[in-house]
Amino acid sequence: MSEQDDAKKLAGEASVEHIEDGMTIGLGSGSTVYWMIRKIGECVQDGLEVKGIPSSRQTKEWANKFGVPLTDFAHVQKLDIAIDGADEVDPQWNLIKGGGGALVREKIIAAAARKFVVIVDESKLVTRLGAFKLPVEILPFGWETTAGRIAELGGETVLRLVGDDVFVSDNGNYIVDCRFGGIDDPETLHQQLKQLTGVVETGLFTEMVDEVIAGYKDQAKPVSKD
Amino acid sequence: MSEQDDAKKLAGEASVEHIEDGMTIGLGSGSTVYWMIRKIGECVQDGLEVKGIPSSRQTKEWANKFGVPLTDFAHVQKLDIAIDGADEVDPQWNLIKGGGGALVREKIIAAAARKFVVIVDESKLVTRLGAFKLPVEILPFGWETTAGRIAELGGETVLRLVGDDVFVSDNGNYIVDCRFGGIDDPETLHQQLKQLTGVVETGLFTEMVDEVIAGYKDQAKPVSKD
Repeated sequence: MSEQDDAKKLAGEASVEHIEDGMTIGLGSGSTVYWMIRKIGECVQDGLEVKGIPSSRQTKEWANKFGVPLTDFAHVQKLDIAIDGADEVDPQWNLIKGGGGALVREKIIAAAARKFVVIVDESKLVTRLGAFKLPVEILPFGWETTAGRIAELGGETVLRLVGDDVFVSDNGNYIVDCRFGGIDDPETLHQQLKQLTGVVETGLFTEMVDEVIAGYKDQAKPVSKD
Repeated sequence: MSEQDDAKKLAGEASVEHIEDGMTIGLGSGSTVYWMIRKIGECVQDGLEVKGIPSSRQTKEWANKFGVPLTDFAHVQKLDIAIDGADEVDPQWNLIKGGGGALVREKIIAAAARKFVVIVDESKLVTRLGAFKLPVEILPFGWETTAGRIAELGGETVLRLVGDDVFVSDNGNYIVDCRFGGIDDPETLHQQLKQLTGVVETGLFTEMVDEVIAGYKDQAKPVSKD
């Protein structure tokens, strides 16, 4: 494994210390979450009783593979904890998420959780958000006009593709990746974007995070908040 | 026809006076819009050259039936005019829409139009919005938690059904019909709802309308704004 993979594994596994018997867990998405799910699976084999709600098809597959029992929002409306990765984390624990395309379900899960823990390798820690293009999920109908109104807010937008096809989210929507330059006020930008007709959700997660665990090549440790 | 149907026909037909040669037209949805489309079709037969973008499958069918040429947002991003019905219109021209389930596409179309004309029979004119339950389109994933957060804003929510099945919008989403009582500040309520993760759009149309035409049993006339 690369040093970055080691760091992801360490962060993902460290987060499992927050999980207690009987908890319902929001399961994020992505390569760091993979290690978290694998570790939960080991704990379940050792007798831990938990249930998870997955934020993506990939996460659901991993949970099934590692024997993590699943449930859904028809059965539980509040989660004890959600654990997820991020594409960027700033010193105030604001996030950019959505590189993997699951930002909406990830945010619904995080919003339903009493505690939201973010796990990243150290390369995701930034002094200011925005080098990573901001994913914004929008409705397919009229996406051209919606992208135009995002551009009026100062964002350079690119419709996400997979090969020659438009990328379609698990919710049946499109994603535009938006370059706003450095984002000085993530909360305001999120609110402006979310208000736009045709915008379903943005990849800016603000005022949601309770703890950040960063993985380094040989350890994982909590990141303090500025 | 009932007196209400007469009023709808008169309002729908009167709105066509706003349409000029060469225009691109946003075509709303519903029983009053039916008469507008039928009238446009007559004008097209007489030589009017226009193109419409339909806000629902039903509207698309009517446009085809009456010979109104269609286009889409891949070809035009700005519309000259949008004409649509409403479930309630207050004296400040705020609207509740979405009884028919097409509120999101209707709003995308209205937002893309330089001029937005609303056509209603007089029964839709109210002194305060809210007797009609406010439709809010939400994502199916986690809809239970989203409805819970709408309820925290003071709304009594009912998931819209068709018979025993959940109603699914043209965008693949669900609709909750929300009773907030009389709505004193439509703009603020809309913003609060739209900010919620899982909410795609609300049926509150505020600060969008340029003209309201009301139909009565024997005439149609513009409604003045308070």
